[in-house]
Amino acid sequence: MNPARGRFISLEGGEGAGKSTLLAGVLDCLRQRGLSVVQAREPGGTPVGEAVRAIVLDPALAGLAAETELLLMFASRAQLVREVIEPALAAGQWVVCDRFADASYAYQGGGRGQPVARIEELERWACDGVKPDLTLLLDLPVAAGRARAAGRGEADRIESEADAFFERVRASYRARAAQEPGRFRVIDASQAPEQVLQAATRALIEWLERSAR
Amino acid sequence: MNPARGRFISLEGGEGAGKSTLLAGVLDCLRQRGLSVVQAREPGGTPVGEAVRAIVLDPALAGLAAETELLLMFASRAQLVREVIEPALAAGQWVVCDRFADASYAYQGGGRGQPVARIEELERWACDGVKPDLTLLLDLPVAAGRARAAGRGEADRIESEADAFFERVRASYRARAAQEPGRFRVIDASQAPEQVLQAATRALIEWLERSAR
Repeated sequence: MNPARGRFISLEGGEGAGKSTLLAGVLDCLRQRGLSVVQAREPGGTPVGEAVRAIVLDPALAGLAAETELLLMFASRAQLVREVIEPALAAGQWVVCDRFADASYAYQGGGRGQPVARIEELERWACDGVKPDLTLLLDLPVAAGRARAAGRGEADRIESEADAFFERVRASYRARAAQEPGRFRVIDASQAPEQVLQAATRALIEWLERSAR
Repeated sequence: MNPARGRFISLEGGEGAGKSTLLAGVLDCLRQRGLSVVQAREPGGTPVGEAVRAIVLDPALAGLAAETELLLMFASRAQLVREVIEPALAAGQWVVCDRFADASYAYQGGGRGQPVARIEELERWACDGVKPDLTLLLDLPVAAGRARAAGRGEADRIESEADAFFERVRASYRARAAQEPGRFRVIDASQAPEQVLQAATRALIEWLERSAR
């Protein structure tokens, strides 16, 4: 007998939005309900993906072309879908992923100006139809996020971008959330960390109960 | 004053066809004519590309999905075009590259079954209009090539494929050459190495003289 297919939740948001805290909270929440949960991240989550991550975040590679970055992100994603996400979902497990395709629309699309049609075409075949059922977007003003992220030591290649870049990333995320209100939950991440987690957990539980009906 | 734009020559062929010997011969031939020549290879040729090469050829990554491989190859190519090939051509230098986009049609298309339309779409934007002016294709039966390549020590991930894979690669290369006879010169690489080099050099010189007219 085939188990019921699992569900796929992605977490999105700019720098310093509190994604790591949220990830732990979401995993806890799902496991308390007896669900078997697989955790992943992007770029990364597979041996190939982690090797790609090392390239993409290397501060020494300032000359990385936007097209190269887009292709590398989708290379990592294509592998993650086939090696981790799809097999887990098919086996009835749930998957929580720190960033997914929305991040390419925000960072490589909004941030670096890669055309949306190009990203849509890559998503079409690289993701093999896999799309999050729920996306929790942590949204906060760029200055606030950067102030929080600044305490973490040396910035990686993407963290080293200018504020204008992150404003475009934020605007892209918000535009995508507005286009797909059924899938996105936008969380005000300018609140204190425990309030952010509370708001996100509330949104998650409301979604779980609604989708279980 | 802008210098005349340089020209771009790619070398293609399966395993054991003698591409390395040919590369040295082509470089010699061009330099003897006083041309300034830049040498590159794929995947690789830039810091990002070499990091991608290490992933793509790693025999431990047998589970690399065909889609991932295609995206990684074009990531390396997109960077090589922007960092090396296009700047060199614009500065009037000639470029000789060990493999280019034709290799994706042959290996990821013919070999792994990725759709040609997908590869064409990637080529369209990842290569930014850069296409070889001349492609020297070393062609030989799969068994002969593999016998020669076998003497080189441990096989990489792609060299470890079955004969049927390399038959499809060869057929794709030959089909592309037949479609673009103006750009391709097919060299019979089953001859002795010195004869292969002679035949290739003859084809190159004939092309140089014809295109200089």
